[in-house]
Parts: sequence; C-alpha cells; structure tokens
Amino acid sequence: MKIAQIAPPWLSIPPKNYGGAEVVIYNLIEEFVSQGHDVTLFASGDARTSAKLVSFFPKSLIERGVPWSAHLKAYYHLYKSLEHADEFDIVHTHLSSSSDLYIFPLTASLTTPHVTTLHSRFPFDRVNTWTGDADDLYMEWAPYVPMIAISESARAEVSHELNFVGVVPHGLMMEQFRPTGRKRGDFFVWLGRFVPDKGVHLAIEAAKRAQVPVVLAGTIDRYSQESVHYFQEIIKPLIDEKQIRYVGPVNMKEKISLLSRARGFLNPIEWEEPFGMVMIESMALGCPVISFARGAAPEIIVSGKTGFLVHDLDEMVACIPHIDEIDRDVTRMHVEEHFSAHVMAQEYIEIYKKLVNTWDNVPRPFTAEPVMSLPY
Amino acid sequence: MKIAQIAPPWLSIPPKNYGGAEVVIYNLIEEFVSQGHDVTLFASGDARTSAKLVSFFPKSLIERGVPWSAHLKAYYHLYKSLEHADEFDIVHTHLSSSSDLYIFPLTASLTTPHVTTLHSRFPFDRVNTWTGDADDLYMEWAPYVPMIAISESARAEVSHELNFVGVVPHGLMMEQFRPTGRKRGDFFVWLGRFVPDKGVHLAIEAAKRAQVPVVLAGTIDRYSQESVHYFQEIIKPLIDEKQIRYVGPVNMKEKISLLSRARGFLNPIEWEEPFGMVMIESMALGCPVISFARGAAPEIIVSGKTGFLVHDLDEMVACIPHIDEIDRDVTRMHVEEHFSAHVMAQEYIEIYKKLVNTWDNVPRPFTAEPVMSLPY
Repeated sequence: MKIAQIAPPWLSIPPKNYGGAEVVIYNLIEEFVSQGHDVTLFASGDARTSAKLVSFFPKSLIERGVPWSAHLKAYYHLYKSLEHADEFDIVHTHLSSSSDLYIFPLTASLTTPHVTTLHSRFPFDRVNTWTGDADDLYMEWAPYVPMIAISESARAEVSHELNFVGVVPHGLMMEQFRPTGRKRGDFFVWLGRFVPDKGVHLAIEAAKRAQVPVVLAGTIDRYSQESVHYFQEIIKPLIDEKQIRYVGPVNMKEKISLLSRARGFLNPIEWEEPFGMVMIESMALGCPVISFARGAAPEIIVSGKTGFLVHDLDEMVACIPHIDEIDRDVTRMHVEEHFSAHVMAQEYIEIYKKLVNTWDNVPRPFTAEPVMSLPY
Repeated sequence: MKIAQIAPPWLSIPPKNYGGAEVVIYNLIEEFVSQGHDVTLFASGDARTSAKLVSFFPKSLIERGVPWSAHLKAYYHLYKSLEHADEFDIVHTHLSSSSDLYIFPLTASLTTPHVTTLHSRFPFDRVNTWTGDADDLYMEWAPYVPMIAISESARAEVSHELNFVGVVPHGLMMEQFRPTGRKRGDFFVWLGRFVPDKGVHLAIEAAKRAQVPVVLAGTIDRYSQESVHYFQEIIKPLIDEKQIRYVGPVNMKEKISLLSRARGFLNPIEWEEPFGMVMIESMALGCPVISFARGAAPEIIVSGKTGFLVHDLDEMVACIPHIDEIDRDVTRMHVEEHFSAHVMAQEYIEIYKKLVNTWDNVPRPFTAEPVMSLPY
C-alpha cells in the first residue's frame, strides 16, 4: 500500500529519550517497509527512517526549544503534510498532544482514506495546569475522523464520542529487544518518565517492604514542572544509592541490558495508563512485570504467566518473592505473539484495507454544499 | 454591501478595558450599519453590536481565563466563522495576536473576496518571552491574503512581505468623543496599558522636570508579567499622589472627562507604535498631544497645530509650557476630518469595492489542482 505517516513534529522519530507515540511510529514504519509497503514519513528533518522522509523544517520542535503551547509551527507541519494526502492509499495521523487536535478539522473531509491513532488521554486543550473546553467543540468533526485506540482500556476510558474503527496494541522490534543473556541481578527495576501517575514512590515503597533492591532509570522531563517537582521533592530523598538507586536516563542498549538483568519490573501505576510500552519492553527481555491492574495492564500481562496483576501495594509486596516462578522464556514469547511490530503492522494494514474498501461509506460533513475550498 | 467582520475571540466587542483592535471593529461596524450596510459580526456572545451577531461560544476567551497561548478555541472560532464566507460580498478579518496567524492558511484560497487588517507587529509566534519562527513559514500564504495597514509607519515597519492593498487609520465615533466643557485642569495626562514601550516613566520624568502635575490612568495587564513588573517596580515608586497621581483603569465616561480636562497628553513612546488610538481620542476631546515622533505619531499629529512632535525628553520638557498655544477646537477638527469612524468606514468600503471588482485578479494558490477540500 502507499502509506502516509504524519508524525507529530515535537520529538524526533525515533525519540532520543522518552516518546511513546514516536517509538510506535518508528517501529510501524520500519516493519511496513520490510513488508514491502511504500511508506512516506512526514516528520521533522532529524527523523531516522527507512521510509521516504518529507520535512517542512529540519529539527523537531522540542529540540528547537519550542514550548508545547506554541502551536503555529506544529499546525504548519500538519497542514503542509495533508496537502499531499491524495498521493496515498491511506493517511495515518497521531493524536498525542494538544496541537494534534487540529487533526479533527483538517482531516474531517479528506477525500483520501485516513485514520488517527489516539496515543494520549483527553482533554487535549491544556497549557501546563490549565485545562480548557476546546475538546468538546472539536468533537463536531469526530464522526468523520476514524480512530484507533491502543488498548481496549484506552478506548473505554475516552470521555468523548469518537469514531473508533479498531484497537491496535503497540508492538516492539523483537530482534532489537533480545535478552543479553548476561548474569541476572538481584534487583527489581522501574523505568520511565518521572511523573506521579507512574507511581515511582510506590515502587520504592514496595521494594523497601519486600527488602529487595530497586534500580530506577529514566528521564526527568525538564519542560514539565510536575516532573521536576516530583523527582526533586518526592523521589530524590528516597534514593540511598544502596537499596534504592537511580542510574539516570538510559539509551536503548542500557535499557536492554538493565531489563535483561532485572528480576522483575515494578509498575504500580496510579492512573488508567492507555498502554504502557515499558511493560512489553520488559517482558520481551524476559523480565516479568508486577503491575497494578489498571489501564491496559490486564490486556498486556497474563497474571501468573508473564508477571502478576495486583490491586494494591500489599499484593505487590506479596508477589515480589514469587517473581522467579515466572518463566522468562514464556514472558518473551507472549510479547512475540501479541506485541511485536510485525503483529502491530499486520493489524494496522487490516484496518487500512477495511477503510480503503469501505471509504465511500464513511460519513463526511458538508459534502453536499462546499462553500469554500482551501489551497490543498 | 454584505460584510462579514470576524473579530478575534479574546476580548469582547467593544472591549471592557483595553483592546485597540476591538474598539476599531466596534466603531467600524456601528458606522457601517448606520450607513446602511448589511453587517454580520462573528464574535463571542458577549459582543455588543448593531450588526447581526454569530457566536460559537458565549464568552470572550480572556473572560474565561483562557491563556493567550491556548489556540484551540480561537482557531475553532476562526474556522467556523469562515464556513460562512460565501454568504458575504467581503470577509474582513483582523490580525492582532498569535492565534490570528491561522488567518493566512485559512483564508488564502477563499473564493469570497477577503481582507485582513494588521493591528499589531510581527512576529506573532510568541509565548510570553519566547519567540519562534513560524511567522516566516506562514508567509507562504501572504501573497494570497490582501492586507490593510493602520498607518504608513506600520506598513513600512513590517518585517515580512505582505500583500498590502491599502492603509486605513483608526477612526473614532465623534459624537461619543465630545469634550465635556467642564473646567480645565492644570494637569497633563498619560493613559493606556502599562508597558515599558509606552514610556510612562518618561512621561513622569518630563512632568517632574517641567514642574507640572501628571495624572496616570489605565490598566495593568495582569496576564502580562511584563506589565505587572513594569508597574510594580518602575512606576509605582514614582507615584506620590501629589504631582504624580494614578487613578486606575477608567471607563469611557471617565476617560472622556479626564482627557477633556487635561492640558495636554504626554506620549513619550519607546517603539514604532503602529497607530496610537489614545492620541486621536485625546485630540478629539481637544487635548493636544506631545509625542515622540515615532511610529504613526507623525501621521496623526500636526506639530504646532494639534500638539507637538518631539525627538527626546528635553524637547518634550521644552514644549510643555507651550501647550496652551494649541487651539483645542482645531485639534478636535483635525480628528473629525481624518480620524472619524465615518472617514474610516468610507475608506474601508472603497477598498472592499476595489477588491470585489478585481477579485479574479487576486492570485490564489494551488487552484489548478486542488488535492483536497475541507468541510466548508
């Protein structure tokens, strides 16, 4: 198929550090190309991809220091990308942060079949701690924008009426996520972006109560007051560099090494996380996950087989001594079967085909009487 | 003519306090209606107008506490307003703050004749003290967006290549701005929004050196750090409530009373102000203006006849004793002839007609091969 992937222009593809949507877009494209599809990626010029790359500026916006609330350049990227829509069989966009909400008006009556993956949670009309009500207004176009959720939980949690056409979980490049085979450590691990919702403080408490060491790794988002404050005020005082260690942000190689060696991953999330990429990364490396049974976790973990689903801190503490009963090969195999880039790409292609074949049936607004045409 | 006025949705029409573009839009519409034109105002529901009003939400965004950087709702207002474009002979938009920059892509290929008044200075890609480069990208559409400047100075100062089709200075409702005839005071006046560019500290210094009292009036923009800081740190310490007084924000009646009674208006602006509404308001009330000869001031003041144009603080101090030599009736008459809403409306209508009659000649992008049509 001729596929357009329009990436949000904020982080590079793949991302330097954290960036869930950006990892997925990268994996999806690499898999599409290897399956023989003709893919064009619309992204900033610092993208690394096997697809054709079309860029409207050289650097991703965060690299250039653009504040998340400054929408003009992101809008330009989306608008200019969509000018090329008719060159493709399908146009795939990604709703991940505030400025992506323009996808609704700008794709609502594309004549080319299109679909949007919902990566984050509503509302999108946010600036720091302020929340507005523009999301409600933009739902006017929702019937005309086919959407894909990244988990059944994400789909169920959506507070607005979206036109969902499917659920496709994230997928990993299995050849990249291969256990190192190096000596197993005695430690548990937590890895991610430091925000209260991820429950890092609970992971620390669980490790303390179960008397096991825990290694923390990942990024403090210096553009997010919440992230900086959470790390400095709540997490940092708990780090003793003996039982509780923080090793900083990790690159891909370090992440694979760390997760391969860890006994288990602690995931006491305090929100309905729509997916949880780090859970499948961990499992792909044989590292079982003990997670609160919230968000997409019950769709990702088979409790007792690839880790444990627990309902509170007591249960997490109780499960920690049982972690070595989980077969690390079975854990990896579960990811291979359900959460590989290969599987993800196949599921997307199926939805693309269905959309292309039924496109005339997709309702489109105002088509009877267009009163104006825009320059693309 | 059937005229659409699309106001920015941030402040009410007319504005509660400060809002240059909003005053002009209000005046222009009232004058159009009284001249028999069929006018529709697209604005938030708190607008007061003699035109038909079309609103997509009830309250102006600042009233609702929306941060200036949160563009989604402002974009919705603009997008929805433009859906009605073909119902009019001419569509008139206003470029005044960051979110108005979407006017460029959204009007570039309107089939209905349209024109945009430039009220503020480039760049528009700004969030607080951060400045981006999106303005450059948006100039792609500039050839297809006819623009009107509010002064020759404003037009000359523009750092980008815009498609200017005329210059129309702001105009006042002369029946509203009528000198009260009450007893003249001995004081000079400064009135406006407290920001360093307005040179309030210089007005104070001039008054001190010339040994005349000065009354300060106007708003501290609590949404602008710069404004709050300037007032608190620089201006407030200079207020002695004897020679230097601050009377707070003023409503229309208070403004008219204050300017009618003042001996003169001090306007030591520290930037190329594109217009300077308060100068014509002051002059309309017979109050002559001593202004630095910057920005549009030389187009507004006839030095020696309606006030004085000066080049530095020394000259301003030297002119203050001569203020009573200016004929206050001549000052008002000058505004009546050049800066009334009546004159402004006539000048706009002339440009509208020229645009309507020559619209086929206005270049439009991509018309040869539209690859997508949006839902309006």
